[in-house]
Amino acid sequence: MSTTINKAACVGGGVIGGAWVARFALAGIDVKVFDPHPEAERIIGEVMANAERAYGMLTMAPLPPKGKVTFCKSIQEAVEDADWIQESVPERLELKRGVLTQIDAAAKPDALIGSSTSGLMPTDLQRDMKHPERLFVAHPYNPVYLLPLAELVGGQKTSRAVLEDAKAKLAPIGMKGVIINKEIEAFVGDRLLEAVWREGLWLIKDDICDTETLDDVIRYSFGMRWAQMGMFETYRIAGGEAGMRHFLAQFGPCLSWPWTKLTDVVDLNDELVEKIANQSDAQSGARGIRELERIRDQNLVGIMHALKAGDEGRGWGSGKLLADFEAHLWAKAGKAKVEVSSSEPLRLVDTKVNAAWVDYNGHMTEHRYLQLFGDTSDALLRLIGVDFAYVEAGHSYYTVETHIRHLGEGKLGQALYTTLQLLSSDRKRLHFFTRIHDAASGDVIATAEQMMVHVDSKAGKSVDAPAEVLAKIAPIAEAHAKLAVPEGAGRSVGQRNK
Amino acid sequence: MSTTINKAACVGGGVIGGAWVARFALAGIDVKVFDPHPEAERIIGEVMANAERAYGMLTMAPLPPKGKVTFCKSIQEAVEDADWIQESVPERLELKRGVLTQIDAAAKPDALIGSSTSGLMPTDLQRDMKHPERLFVAHPYNPVYLLPLAELVGGQKTSRAVLEDAKAKLAPIGMKGVIINKEIEAFVGDRLLEAVWREGLWLIKDDICDTETLDDVIRYSFGMRWAQMGMFETYRIAGGEAGMRHFLAQFGPCLSWPWTKLTDVVDLNDELVEKIANQSDAQSGARGIRELERIRDQNLVGIMHALKAGDEGRGWGSGKLLADFEAHLWAKAGKAKVEVSSSEPLRLVDTKVNAAWVDYNGHMTEHRYLQLFGDTSDALLRLIGVDFAYVEAGHSYYTVETHIRHLGEGKLGQALYTTLQLLSSDRKRLHFFTRIHDAASGDVIATAEQMMVHVDSKAGKSVDAPAEVLAKIAPIAEAHAKLAVPEGAGRSVGQRNK
Repeated sequence: MSTTINKAACVGGGVIGGAWVARFALAGIDVKVFDPHPEAERIIGEVMANAERAYGMLTMAPLPPKGKVTFCKSIQEAVEDADWIQESVPERLELKRGVLTQIDAAAKPDALIGSSTSGLMPTDLQRDMKHPERLFVAHPYNPVYLLPLAELVGGQKTSRAVLEDAKAKLAPIGMKGVIINKEIEAFVGDRLLEAVWREGLWLIKDDICDTETLDDVIRYSFGMRWAQMGMFETYRIAGGEAGMRHFLAQFGPCLSWPWTKLTDVVDLNDELVEKIANQSDAQSGARGIRELERIRDQNLVGIMHALKAGDEGRGWGSGKLLADFEAHLWAKAGKAKVEVSSSEPLRLVDTKVNAAWVDYNGHMTEHRYLQLFGDTSDALLRLIGVDFAYVEAGHSYYTVETHIRHLGEGKLGQALYTTLQLLSSDRKRLHFFTRIHDAASGDVIATAEQMMVHVDSKAGKSVDAPAEVLAKIAPIAEAHAKLAVPEGAGRSVGQRNK
Repeated sequence: MSTTINKAACVGGGVIGGAWVARFALAGIDVKVFDPHPEAERIIGEVMANAERAYGMLTMAPLPPKGKVTFCKSIQEAVEDADWIQESVPERLELKRGVLTQIDAAAKPDALIGSSTSGLMPTDLQRDMKHPERLFVAHPYNPVYLLPLAELVGGQKTSRAVLEDAKAKLAPIGMKGVIINKEIEAFVGDRLLEAVWREGLWLIKDDICDTETLDDVIRYSFGMRWAQMGMFETYRIAGGEAGMRHFLAQFGPCLSWPWTKLTDVVDLNDELVEKIANQSDAQSGARGIRELERIRDQNLVGIMHALKAGDEGRGWGSGKLLADFEAHLWAKAGKAKVEVSSSEPLRLVDTKVNAAWVDYNGHMTEHRYLQLFGDTSDALLRLIGVDFAYVEAGHSYYTVETHIRHLGEGKLGQALYTTLQLLSSDRKRLHFFTRIHDAASGDVIATAEQMMVHVDSKAGKSVDAPAEVLAKIAPIAEAHAKLAVPEGAGRSVGQRNK
């Protein structure tokens, strides 16, 4: 079985289905969509726009060409050539069962079929299918294009191999498939969420606090713990060196305390609905949903960036997952071609100024310019065969000198691209000049002249680059020898323009 | 009432009490400690070491001189001159009530008394106090030196003004005081946690999943949402433009579904304890508790850094709180003196290479050098009166040119300091040379020659700096005129050493 998805189908658009479409398409996978809703195309378009904005911030790794999204007139047309079909229709058993049975009849026999249900049992869903062994629950979390989790749950007729295959196929699109041992209504995540939700409703109904206070209690405390470790690992730490047994001995007794309301289900009557809605308006009403979505996505991206640096740079949790996703993207991009021409410098990086790059004035902070120059020289290095594997093998190019001039200003959201001109090179050295351009006008907002030296990173000394690298430098050097020396090259700080 | 804490006392050390000590001391507040436990000093020392490591990563803002930590022989000696007293003794009502009554008798009448209890009712705690109006629950979350939340809960005799005062006094030490309307056992956070905990125990007991799977379900999904928005704001988004009412209409029915186990409390017997402990060992046992603590703290710091960039640079949630805390630190540091000497450059920044600064090889990434050079020039600007307020008023110095040389390598955890030498200046320009030193050897690992120009940031053009700024530059220029021109100054990229 292939461990990548070549063609995907989404039956049911909406917020969840649309976000699955975005996940697939942004990973370079063609997606066929069936959703009879007259607004489906508009809704999916809006979700896709959010997802593209988020991915622009999420990674500097080269996203593949976006997969083609095709809207189909029937379930059959949507699913017949797909190898992953994701069902995201409303949460009614009969409806889902009917749709899944139609999908099963039209799909290739070995196609995987995932249901986005947040609570129904896969055994009930697969009842009428001819090939029930490839039906499973793949329960995602909103926003699906950013949150990595998919709970994978099989029914009585689901094959374990299918669950393992599904897990393997989710990894290249940046998702974490987690296999749940036994099917159970609401699976794991929603059972935990529903327990908090029910308790929260009591706290609001009894006026212990309002919705904003309750949210603050979560986000300033255990929410931060749970973004990177879960409940058990966190409590293990709380147990100290004695670990989990000690913690359980301490905490166990609380279970018999009269804390959470065990026997009652709050009556979510009109009065309570109004109370919650009014408190929520007071808390968040100043911002529209789209704005809150942008803030949420930006924060989630930032959290993944932060966790990517976790465990001393090895990456932790969703940050490790992001690093793996990027490694996958780079591997794909290795094959991508950059145009070497004697009439213009190499165009190497296209990016946007994201929120983490700007100061409180919305201006790109100084060191982010150097980060972008660094990403550009990294792209040059990959072009001449100095990639991740090359560096891991013990050799690399280190920057020894950089001269930056600021000619303009990068602002939040501004689209930029960089161009690089090789000034000179020898067996050890690469001397080049990089420009950061505003993508709209082409104007240069900053330049960097840099010198890199090829090193044996273990020995920590400079050594000649190998023949295969020099062979890849040669045509670039030859082409760029025909370019004019850039204004600003060979300049020292404060020197008057030549 | 003053809105800052001048002297603090902690009665009861341990993990929670010790972390309160760290919070106070790292914010520059002297703390007196009483804890009869023979190991108290060692335990608090270990917590303090963790906290100092975390703060080294948390902020580049200048931490004040650490507050003095004094271990006392009696409650009276510890609390008599404190204006904030935090009680963190074991969770037994009689014990806490007795200790709090002793504290009350020995404390200044207007001192605030907070209890770290995670579940007892303040009305019960304050019963025997002479000044019960200043007793409240200040329930923190581990690690207290990083997680900002303190649930503030008053009893029947607690004055509302005291709760407001406590909230105000927590802000300058980077904490978020949240006032709970009504006292209730376990308050808000622990009620929510206990609901999840109880449901989680059922899931493990029934073999639906193991502890690692449950933790993955949390940290790859709603944990990431809850680190930045809480439950209600997240669900508000899920409701779409129709907002909370629509969401409640959709989700409400689930409350009557037979999802979470409503009536039973799991029997946490030896068998279940063993099962959980063994699963936890399999999940996390490869790492010691201290290592997990370091990873956790590094992740929490990274999350706060990420959220500091949230809401388009204005800061969001705990990141906004961090920005406010740093503004407070800078304001204090404004008064701090830097030694201007004609025998050596200005020493402006002391820092450590933190995990977010290094690549997978543990080497400091290129653009972080420029970040450190930027922090150094910011320190120079504050020294000449160009601070946050000055910039907000519409003028600033912008860097127009930078020349960096890499002479060594920064590695994870390495202590560094920077020195700055003014090379020349006029009414508009500052031309200076900065060195990054290894703190242990003093060796220079990188240098930057930079040119800054004074600008009217609204008009976007260079203008003369005002007399008061020039007056502060003058003595530095005069002193540094006597220093030798640094080797490497006035150099262009690739130029042979003079």
